[in-house]
Amino acid sequence: MHRNEAIMKAARTADSDEILHSMKPCILLLSVFAAGLAAQTFTPANAAALAARQWREQHERAIVEEFVSLLAIPNVAADRANMQRNAETIAKMMEKRGIAAKLIAEPGGNPMVFGEVKTPGATRTIVFYAHYDGQPVDPKDWATAPFTPTLRDKPLERDGQVSQLPSPGTPFNPEWRLYARSAGDDKLPIVAILSAMDALREAGWKSKSNIKFAFEGEEEAGSANLERTLAANKDLFGGDLWLICDGPTHPSRRQQIVFGVPGAVQFDVTVYGPRNELHGGHYGNWAPNPALMLARLLASMKDDDGKVQIEHFYDGLIPLNDLERRALEDVPDVDAELMRDFWLGSTVASPKRLAELITLPVLNIRGISSARAGAQAAAVVPATALASITVNPMAGMDQRRIADLLIEHVRKQGFFVTRDEPAPEVRMAHAKVARVVVRPGGYNGARTAMDLPISQELIRVIESARGPVVKLPNWGGAMPLEMIERTLGTRGLVIPTANHDDNQHSANENVRIQNLWDAIELMAALLTM
Amino acid sequence: MHRNEAIMKAARTADSDEILHSMKPCILLLSVFAAGLAAQTFTPANAAALAARQWREQHERAIVEEFVSLLAIPNVAADRANMQRNAETIAKMMEKRGIAAKLIAEPGGNPMVFGEVKTPGATRTIVFYAHYDGQPVDPKDWATAPFTPTLRDKPLERDGQVSQLPSPGTPFNPEWRLYARSAGDDKLPIVAILSAMDALREAGWKSKSNIKFAFEGEEEAGSANLERTLAANKDLFGGDLWLICDGPTHPSRRQQIVFGVPGAVQFDVTVYGPRNELHGGHYGNWAPNPALMLARLLASMKDDDGKVQIEHFYDGLIPLNDLERRALEDVPDVDAELMRDFWLGSTVASPKRLAELITLPVLNIRGISSARAGAQAAAVVPATALASITVNPMAGMDQRRIADLLIEHVRKQGFFVTRDEPAPEVRMAHAKVARVVVRPGGYNGARTAMDLPISQELIRVIESARGPVVKLPNWGGAMPLEMIERTLGTRGLVIPTANHDDNQHSANENVRIQNLWDAIELMAALLTM
Repeated sequence: MHRNEAIMKAARTADSDEILHSMKPCILLLSVFAAGLAAQTFTPANAAALAARQWREQHERAIVEEFVSLLAIPNVAADRANMQRNAETIAKMMEKRGIAAKLIAEPGGNPMVFGEVKTPGATRTIVFYAHYDGQPVDPKDWATAPFTPTLRDKPLERDGQVSQLPSPGTPFNPEWRLYARSAGDDKLPIVAILSAMDALREAGWKSKSNIKFAFEGEEEAGSANLERTLAANKDLFGGDLWLICDGPTHPSRRQQIVFGVPGAVQFDVTVYGPRNELHGGHYGNWAPNPALMLARLLASMKDDDGKVQIEHFYDGLIPLNDLERRALEDVPDVDAELMRDFWLGSTVASPKRLAELITLPVLNIRGISSARAGAQAAAVVPATALASITVNPMAGMDQRRIADLLIEHVRKQGFFVTRDEPAPEVRMAHAKVARVVVRPGGYNGARTAMDLPISQELIRVIESARGPVVKLPNWGGAMPLEMIERTLGTRGLVIPTANHDDNQHSANENVRIQNLWDAIELMAALLTM
Repeated sequence: MHRNEAIMKAARTADSDEILHSMKPCILLLSVFAAGLAAQTFTPANAAALAARQWREQHERAIVEEFVSLLAIPNVAADRANMQRNAETIAKMMEKRGIAAKLIAEPGGNPMVFGEVKTPGATRTIVFYAHYDGQPVDPKDWATAPFTPTLRDKPLERDGQVSQLPSPGTPFNPEWRLYARSAGDDKLPIVAILSAMDALREAGWKSKSNIKFAFEGEEEAGSANLERTLAANKDLFGGDLWLICDGPTHPSRRQQIVFGVPGAVQFDVTVYGPRNELHGGHYGNWAPNPALMLARLLASMKDDDGKVQIEHFYDGLIPLNDLERRALEDVPDVDAELMRDFWLGSTVASPKRLAELITLPVLNIRGISSARAGAQAAAVVPATALASITVNPMAGMDQRRIADLLIEHVRKQGFFVTRDEPAPEVRMAHAKVARVVVRPGGYNGARTAMDLPISQELIRVIESARGPVVKLPNWGGAMPLEMIERTLGTRGLVIPTANHDDNQHSANENVRIQNLWDAIELMAALLTM
C-alpha cells in the first residue's frame, strides 16, 4: 500500500536513517487519530505498529484462516507424529514468506523450528521464541473439540455461541474468541509475528537487527531437550536478546513486559496403602488409607497463609530491589475483578496482591487421584494415592536442591521415600512408603534487571507502540530462561500477547481476537528494534 | 442317591423325628472319616452337610456352570435392564427347583427376588437374605472382564493362570478361583443355598422350618428401597430369623458368625477453587487450591491413631459386654498374615488388632479426585476437589446424626456448607465453600446378643457341621440389619461364606472354589433348623 511514508520517515528520524517507500500521509494521519494509537511522538515502533494495523484490517480473514489451520493440528508434545506435522507446517509458513527454515531435533524429541532473516549491516541479533506444543487435553472437558478451532461471539463463560467466520471483507468483532488448544498458549505469537512481517514487507519496512525465530515443540512437557539443542547449536540460536513470546497480557488488558520468570520442577508423589483395594468396612479402621496419608502429607506442605513449610524452601531467593518494588506498586490492581471472574470468595495470603505473590516461588498441587470418587466410588480402602505437584523456583533458587528438600520433607513426615515402584518387601519393611518421581527437565528461574539499557530500550519501543505497559519484576509463567541465558550467553525478557482469560493450560483455551490484532502490532514494533 | 439314611436317622434322633429315606450307611461312615467332618456327635446339621458334600462331589461342574451363568449378567445396581435380567434368572433358578418365586419392586428400584418353601406344621420361619447386585466396576482395573467369569489355577496375586473348566467328572481343584464381580459378594450364597436344596431334596431331607429367600438388588447402592419394600410386604418377608448371607469368612478360613454389623452413610464432599482450572504458575500463590483445601479438611478428620476427630462422633456407641469381649479374645490372630498378604508395613492404631478395631465405627475415604494426576496432569490450579467418604456407625449410633456431625465438622474447618451445587454468588460470598451430599439410603448398625437362645442354637448348628466357628461380636461389613429387625420385628445374624481374600468391592473379585463347596454344606446344615 505504501501510504505511510511521510509519517514513518518522521518517526524514523528519531531513531533511524533507513530509506522508506512512498506513503499516503493524510490517510495515515487520520488513521492515527481515529485509532487512538499512543502516538504523541512518532517513532519507528508506532509507525510500524500502525502499518501492521492497516495491513491487518485488509487481511483479517486470511490471518485467522492461517491461524485456524495451524491450531487444527493436535499439538500435545507426546503425540510425536502430529508434532512433526506442526513443525513442518510452521516451516512452510516461513518458507512461503521467503524465510529460510530448519527443523532441528534431538533424538526422541520434537523439532525446534528455526528461521532467520538476515539484515545487511546489522550489529545485533534478536531471537523471537515461542512454542508450538500445548498442554495435554481431556476432550470431555471441552465444549468443542480442542483441535477443532471454533469461533464464539463471546467467552464461553458468558454464554458465547459458536459463530462462523465473517464473510470476506467484513471485519471481525474484536471481542470474539477463537477456541482451540494453544490458541493463546502459544501458537498466537507465531502467527502474529509472521503476519507482522507480511505487513512490514508490504510497507517496505526492514528490521535494523538480524531476526531469528526459535519455535519449540516441548515447552509444556518440560523442555527436556531444549538445553541440549541450544548447546549443540549455539551459533544458530545465539543472539543479543531473546524475546520469549509466551503467556498472557495483564488482566487490565494492558501490554506487559516480564523481567523475571520462575523455573519449574514437577513431582509425582505416590503413597501406598494395601496391595489391592480392600473392603472399606472390614479394613477401614486397620489398613492405612493412602488417600488420608496423602491428604496429611499435602496438608503439611503449606501453612494457612500459603507459606511453604518445606524447610529451606525459600533459601537463595533474590529479593526485589527498589526499582522492582516501585514497578510492582504501579501494577494495576485487578485482584477484585479477577476474584469476580473466577468466582472466588477469598485469596491466599490476603491482603497481599497477586502481583506481589507471584514474585515468590510457587508450590502448586496440580491434581490428586485415589481410587474413584463420586458416582464411580466403591466402598474400598484405596491401594494408592497420587498427587502431581509443581514447584516454581524463582531467580536465585536451585531446582535440584528443591527436589532434595521436597523429598526430605516427605521423609520428615515419616515416609520411606523411593524413586521407583517399591517392591513388596520395601512396602512391608516400612510403616509408610512414598514414591517421589522428579520428572526430568526441571529448570531454574531467572530475572533480568529493569535498569539495563536493553530493558529500558524495550520499554520505550513497546510503550511507543502500545501505550503504557505493565512492568512485572516477575510473574508466574515458568520458562527455561535461565538455561537459555546461561547456554547462549544472551539476555531474555518475556513479551506476552494472549488474553489473561484464555483458559491456558485447561479446557476451552481461547484467544480474544483483539489480542491477535494487538499481537501483530506489537510484533511489528519489535521488528523495528 | 439315598445312601445316608442310617447316619442321618441317627443324627436326627438327637433333634428330630422325621422319617428319612433309605441310605448306604457304610459308605457314608467312611466318607465322614475320610472327609474329616467335625462329626464327633451326629446331628441333623452335620448329616445334612455331609449329604450336601456327596451330592456336590457328583455335580461340581453343573454347580459351577450355573454360577458362571449368573455371574455373566452385569449387576451394577444402576444398570436397571441387566438387574432385571439378574432377578428373572434367579427367579427361574428357583422355579426350576419348584420354589414359588416373585419379583417385588418399588417404582424406580431393582426387584427383590422372593421365594418360599413352606413346611407343613412348621412353627418358625427362617429367611435367607443375600444380594445379587455388585459394586460398580472399572473394567480397565480388571485382569479379565468383570462379567466374563474366569477360572484361574491360583489367585491372580500369586500369578494364577486362566484355566478351563475341568472335563466332566474330574473334580475341581478346591484352591482354584473363579473371577467375576459378585463371585464372592454376593451371588455365592444364592447359588450355594439352591445347590444345598438340590442335595437335600435328593437325600430326601426336609426342613423343620418354613424357608424364605429374600435376594436384594440394591445392597451395594445403599439399599435405598429395602425399607419401603419390607414395610409394604411385612407378611411376605417376615420371619423369626433373618440369616444375612453376605461377606467373607474369617481370614483363618474358619467359618464365622457375625452378631453385629455397622450401618453406612455415604458422603460426597466437593471443595471449590476457581471457576475454571487456572494456570498453576500465575495463580498458584493466590487462588485457593481446592486439592490442598480438601487435603487439609480430610487430614482434620482423624488423628494419628485413626481416632475420628469429628466432635461427638462416638456418642451412643454401645460398648462390648463381657461375653463379647471374651469372644473377641478367641478370634484367631491373623493380623501378621494379613499384613503380609496386603504388603503392609504398618496398621492403624497398632498394636490394636483388626478384630477389635472393627467393633468401632469407621470413617473411610473411598476415593479422592481433583483435576488429573500423573501422566495426564496439567499445570493448573484445579477448579474443584472431590472426596467420597463412608461412615459406618455401629449399634447405638444414629446415622442421621452422624451426617449432621460431619457437616458441622466441615463448617468448623471454615467452610460454608451447601447441599447443592453452589451458585457463583455463594462461592463469592464465602472464603471457603464445600458441598456435602449425604447420599440417600443411609442406615444404622445393629448387634444381636450372643447369649440369646437363637444365637446359641445357631452356634451349635454351624459348629456341628463346620467345626469351631469364629464368633465376631461385630464386623466391618455394613448391612441394613437394624432396619430389617425394626421393620419386620425379626432377629438377624450374619453368616458369611466368601473367602476373605476375594477382592470384594474392588477389581478382580473372586471366589475360592472350596468356599463355594463349604457354603453348600453350611447352607444344608442351616436348612435343618
